[in-house]
Amino acid sequence: MIGGGQGAFIGAIHRIAARIDDEYELVAGAFSSDAEKAKASGLLLGLKPERVYTSYKELIEKEKQLPEGERVQVISIVTPNHVHFEPTKLALENGFHVILDKPMTFSLDEAKELEKVVKSSGKLFCLTHTYTGYPMVKEARQIVKSGKLGAIRKVYVEYPQGWLSTFLEGEDNKQASWRTDPGKSGIAGAMGDIGTHAFNLSEYVTGLQVTKVNADINIVVEGRKLDDDGAVLLKYNNGASGVLTASQIAAGDENNIKIRVYGEKGSIEWQQDIANTLLVKWLDKPAEVWRTGGGYTSSYVTSNMRAPAGHPEGYLEAFANLYKNFAQSVKAQIEGKTATPEALDFPGIDDGVRGMAFVENVIASGKSEKKWTDFVI
Amino acid sequence: MIGGGQGAFIGAIHRIAARIDDEYELVAGAFSSDAEKAKASGLLLGLKPERVYTSYKELIEKEKQLPEGERVQVISIVTPNHVHFEPTKLALENGFHVILDKPMTFSLDEAKELEKVVKSSGKLFCLTHTYTGYPMVKEARQIVKSGKLGAIRKVYVEYPQGWLSTFLEGEDNKQASWRTDPGKSGIAGAMGDIGTHAFNLSEYVTGLQVTKVNADINIVVEGRKLDDDGAVLLKYNNGASGVLTASQIAAGDENNIKIRVYGEKGSIEWQQDIANTLLVKWLDKPAEVWRTGGGYTSSYVTSNMRAPAGHPEGYLEAFANLYKNFAQSVKAQIEGKTATPEALDFPGIDDGVRGMAFVENVIASGKSEKKWTDFVI
Amino acid sequence: MIGGGQGAFIGAIHRIAARIDDEYELVAGAFSSDAEKAKASGLLLGLKPERVYTSYKELIEKEKQLPEGERVQVISIVTPNHVHFEPTKLALENGFHVILDKPMTFSLDEAKELEKVVKSSGKLFCLTHTYTGYPMVKEARQIVKSGKLGAIRKVYVEYPQGWLSTFLEGEDNKQASWRTDPGKSGIAGAMGDIGTHAFNLSEYVTGLQVTKVNADINIVVEGRKLDDDGAVLLKYNNGASGVLTASQIAAGDENNIKIRVYGEKGSIEWQQDIANTLLVKWLDKPAEVWRTGGGYTSSYVTSNMRAPAGHPEGYLEAFANLYKNFAQSVKAQIEGKTATPEALDFPGIDDGVRGMAFVENVIASGKSEKKWTDFVI
Amino acid sequence: MIGGGQGAFIGAIHRIAARIDDEYELVAGAFSSDAEKAKASGLLLGLKPERVYTSYKELIEKEKQLPEGERVQVISIVTPNHVHFEPTKLALENGFHVILDKPMTFSLDEAKELEKVVKSSGKLFCLTHTYTGYPMVKEARQIVKSGKLGAIRKVYVEYPQGWLSTFLEGEDNKQASWRTDPGKSGIAGAMGDIGTHAFNLSEYVTGLQVTKVNADINIVVEGRKLDDDGAVLLKYNNGASGVLTASQIAAGDENNIKIRVYGEKGSIEWQQDIANTLLVKWLDKPAEVWRTGGGYTSSYVTSNMRAPAGHPEGYLEAFANLYKNFAQSVKAQIEGKTATPEALDFPGIDDGVRGMAFVENVIASGKSEKKWTDFVI
Repeated sequence: MIGGGQGAFIGAIHRIAARIDDEYELVAGAFSSDAEKAKASGLLLGLKPERVYTSYKELIEKEKQLPEGERVQVISIVTPNHVHFEPTKLALENGFHVILDKPMTFSLDEAKELEKVVKSSGKLFCLTHTYTGYPMVKEARQIVKSGKLGAIRKVYVEYPQGWLSTFLEGEDNKQASWRTDPGKSGIAGAMGDIGTHAFNLSEYVTGLQVTKVNADINIVVEGRKLDDDGAVLLKYNNGASGVLTASQIAAGDENNIKIRVYGEKGSIEWQQDIANTLLVKWLDKPAEVWRTGGGYTSSYVTSNMRAPAGHPEGYLEAFANLYKNFAQSVKAQIEGKTATPEALDFPGIDDGVRGMAFVENVIASGKSEKKWTDFVI
Repeated sequence: MIGGGQGAFIGAIHRIAARIDDEYELVAGAFSSDAEKAKASGLLLGLKPERVYTSYKELIEKEKQLPEGERVQVISIVTPNHVHFEPTKLALENGFHVILDKPMTFSLDEAKELEKVVKSSGKLFCLTHTYTGYPMVKEARQIVKSGKLGAIRKVYVEYPQGWLSTFLEGEDNKQASWRTDPGKSGIAGAMGDIGTHAFNLSEYVTGLQVTKVNADINIVVEGRKLDDDGAVLLKYNNGASGVLTASQIAAGDENNIKIRVYGEKGSIEWQQDIANTLLVKWLDKPAEVWRTGGGYTSSYVTSNMRAPAGHPEGYLEAFANLYKNFAQSVKAQIEGKTATPEALDFPGIDDGVRGMAFVENVIASGKSEKKWTDFVI
Repeated sequence: MIGGGQGAFIGAIHRIAARIDDEYELVAGAFSSDAEKAKASGLLLGLKPERVYTSYKELIEKEKQLPEGERVQVISIVTPNHVHFEPTKLALENGFHVILDKPMTFSLDEAKELEKVVKSSGKLFCLTHTYTGYPMVKEARQIVKSGKLGAIRKVYVEYPQGWLSTFLEGEDNKQASWRTDPGKSGIAGAMGDIGTHAFNLSEYVTGLQVTKVNADINIVVEGRKLDDDGAVLLKYNNGASGVLTASQIAAGDENNIKIRVYGEKGSIEWQQDIANTLLVKWLDKPAEVWRTGGGYTSSYVTSNMRAPAGHPEGYLEAFANLYKNFAQSVKAQIEGKTATPEALDFPGIDDGVRGMAFVENVIASGKSEKKWTDFVI
Repeated sequence: MIGGGQGAFIGAIHRIAARIDDEYELVAGAFSSDAEKAKASGLLLGLKPERVYTSYKELIEKEKQLPEGERVQVISIVTPNHVHFEPTKLALENGFHVILDKPMTFSLDEAKELEKVVKSSGKLFCLTHTYTGYPMVKEARQIVKSGKLGAIRKVYVEYPQGWLSTFLEGEDNKQASWRTDPGKSGIAGAMGDIGTHAFNLSEYVTGLQVTKVNADINIVVEGRKLDDDGAVLLKYNNGASGVLTASQIAAGDENNIKIRVYGEKGSIEWQQDIANTLLVKWLDKPAEVWRTGGGYTSSYVTSNMRAPAGHPEGYLEAFANLYKNFAQSVKAQIEGKTATPEALDFPGIDDGVRGMAFVENVIASGKSEKKWTDFVI
């Protein structure tokens, strides 16, 4: 693991996700550039001192020198956005599979560069768009894919948060500080942090691609340097339209990312707060409440859950599904087999490139006086 | 009553609304231009045959000739949009108070003309934006007004319907036919029919006014002549931004109009499906579930409900609140008194003018390549 | 109308219910035994002074003397429980149809006596168990009846209120006073007031009859004279078991009466708070959300609703359904026709007798040391 | 770990729970008495072959012989009920801390015997009543304890499942087979399997103890040998009354265990399906929606959650909380420190003894003709 030392939020989440299905063992880490802090984090996590490094370069270099059965196979990178590209590139080029936190890079240019690296490396790459790890999000995608809803016509996707309603970055809040700092997060705040999740979710569930955007991007809290609120009108490649909203000043809201997709014959609705439920609505018959663990769901649900119906699984399990499916895909590669479609169903480099393109396109659109701008990569 | 003969949907709703609080007696009607139909409707409603007319002109003229204590005091007009302006004008000019179904007129020009008529007539005028008749919508407005949420920053308002997902106007469906017919509905379909409700709700609850729009207006169903779907980005006069969506092709959705308003310190959330509940969310304490009939609500709730807490009141009661409050205001005028603020809290000519301006502005924006257009009246 | 003068709660509700569908005109009343109060109430309601009476006897006697086309056809009786039997008996014996508020009488003996009167009178009788007027409650009954759920095995029905959590009868609260007064309410408090609703709902939806009870009846608030809380284990005549709870000390709860009925293959769930929804759950497929106004519902829904799907109807409309269906049945009788099954679907004398038997049986069981006691009438 | 070989449901759940917070390492197991199966399970779990045993006796004996730093510290026992007592006793007597799946033993006698063993052993013991591991269940307990609700008056607790609606034990279903087999489960089916959870939850949240029961215990599915449905009326030691229902024939229901506790001033409501929410209702102010991650919760919430507010945690995390808190308590004991109250807040031997007493008391009450029977241990 690169990043994720003591006090870091997302690093701890990654480690839980990796442990849940027992497919990973954490054996090495570059948790901090401060040797003392790195050591302390490593100790706490039970690593051998010699495999606690003080830079990602050192980690990659030294691990590579270890015998194959001993060195790490997968490297998780959980640093802030501005330290995504270099370690990922280095890891891939040195033969390690990589799991990277989103948004993928600091800029679209880096993203496109990374795409080349992934493709030439032959290594597997996972970008942690966690929400696509939820079983019922996967089922939503399968239902759309099956054609049961007919052609898709409309998409509403929203990610309302309230935690940045005040000038939290002025109060020594680590999370708020780097996420609102252009030097660490890039050109976007809310749009990069949560807008990319909403965007990715919409393309994942519908199987469509955004082709045009028309964005209203706002900095609401005085003194803030990056957008903390925005709404984007979308056009998809089949002619459908969509509305994406992402806000960090939705006072009183937590993280209830929600998507509704409407087809000719019916629609689906999912939201994180009731993650184990997928509402499937129809033009001419009662809406149906699809549930994780229901006997009628596809293999994309059954292979991504652990407890019987009615025992809720949540965010950490969705995250774990990314790790588990990635592990199974890595194993298949090692064994020279083809991984199952369910195992291969994790977000990758294409999602990452499109996500960074989303960031650049919507920020540009937000500044433009032109209504619709093409979604360019 | 003008319009609302047998088979008409909204006329029957108006009559129920008028009856619920026993403030009105239906004594005259011009239900249809077809004499036989008019007569049959009148008979069914128990009217005296001599007060069943075959045109609004006849109704207004003849009723005017009756002695003051005998003639109608209030005229309800429930015809399709293209027959709103003339009868309303005539009724007002001849000394009758008017309750008119929305959207107010066929065009903004008519609306502005009507504004003059209302103001010069000295008569009272109510436009049935029903949703503002819900007690908890009124409470939402009071909470915003009180300043408890701080300055308003963001508004989400949505009205998703699915009933026009197919080409219903091709199937001898009376409602679908006139609502999708430019000759009867005017330049807008969904935006006029339900978009105006969403728009009105957002201005009513926030007390703000829209100043700019950026609209994506779509005809989704092949062959349809008016928009059946749209999304509008909004700017309000205090700098807040908003997102309004209205769709009639949201397959599987009914009429769950919903609004969320976010301020600096908290937010409110209301939706028609759980109309007796208002969710009040805060930055730093638990969200509160305000309920119709709770002892802590304002007079705007207690004066607009009838049954004890937990006995749900719905759409018809919200509609009845418009009628009841209008009646109380008319009575106060007749008695030379000032009506209470609660009684005067019904939608009127200003809402109507702004509603028609909304229609013209968003349809124009939908066709424009300019991103933001000023909201002009 | 007998009872229901100014300040009375349920009388006003009855009048709204009667008005909603325009099947009734209020023309006479004995609102109070105090002549001044009666007069004032009559004036407010727009009655002719000569038809405002000061006793039910006077009302019945004088109305009877009026010519047939002029005198009242239906008498609504909305007095406290101890003034139910006599006026109902007199009204029926003198040729009037009667709508009576529940619980039917002061005692089971009176109930059985009234049964004879109803049957010999040939007049129609409605007891206002309002909850069976909800469209989705009717649909629940139809679904059970259809056999889709298989044989019924288990029933949970609950009615939790919190309004009597304190000694409200000590605080000059009219409702609390008579409802906790054995001289006015009879031997039961909560069990009579709301327990009978829950009991009636369970027998109505399942089509079964209770044969045994095992009751825990409590007076929780110090100083109270009648039960304010209770739970009853039930056995039904097909062998199914049930649990009924009714409480008036469920602090924080309003009136969310709720029923769940489980069969061999599936179950239904309904609650007043989301009255327009019926949840239909299955062993082996997704639960279904049946909605008022959905195209797939039976005539028992479509004939008992007024606004399109998604415009919620509530308690007053459920109440109005009783009045409307009763009116249609009365009309059919007058015209010598057979009323439709939908019109005849209102609670009557059998429900009343069984309701009073419920009261006496559970109060007796509450005092008994025997576990199960037969449900005797 | 003892039990929990391949194909076992609860063993896998325990292992996930143990891994989530990284406080445990699985190093030894007696997964099956079949040497081949045991070996296979061990291999899959990455154990050293020499620490895969074929009986719990062998495991305990051999592990004991290992040096202190090397041998297991905690033994998890996840066998069916009839194999709980012996291995737990042996483990404790040989110096191991024990985590045991519920219900605790095969009989109350065993439970009382085990109580002595636990107390004399000086070792720590955890019984996995998982639901008390949910943060908002813990918060509910703290709120009751704080006195904010006043004295507790009424408890409703329910556990409705539908999975045994058919004769599943006749269809080669491993879970159904042992859970309905008196030889493996003891004298109770539903009451032991899920009734004990509901019972434990009610005593945990209220801090009260049941003193009397009045039970209706049913075998609904033909051919079944143990109860699959029941309802129990309860009296608590402060005079409050309660209703507990547990059913495995609630067709269409999953595992939505739910509790409502009513005090003089307010009430709390929690259900597994929305596990991160605690509804706190009041007599005279709006109900509050307490959420995991809200800044206003107690340390019992914050120390038992991992992801920020709005990222749902579920059943596995609740289970993990038991493991984590137990680990912290074990560590404290080893280090000679006093564990924090939060760490010590896991179900133990007293819960187990009371749970088995619940089973015996309600099964006896179910057979008795006496209404109320004392809750005896």
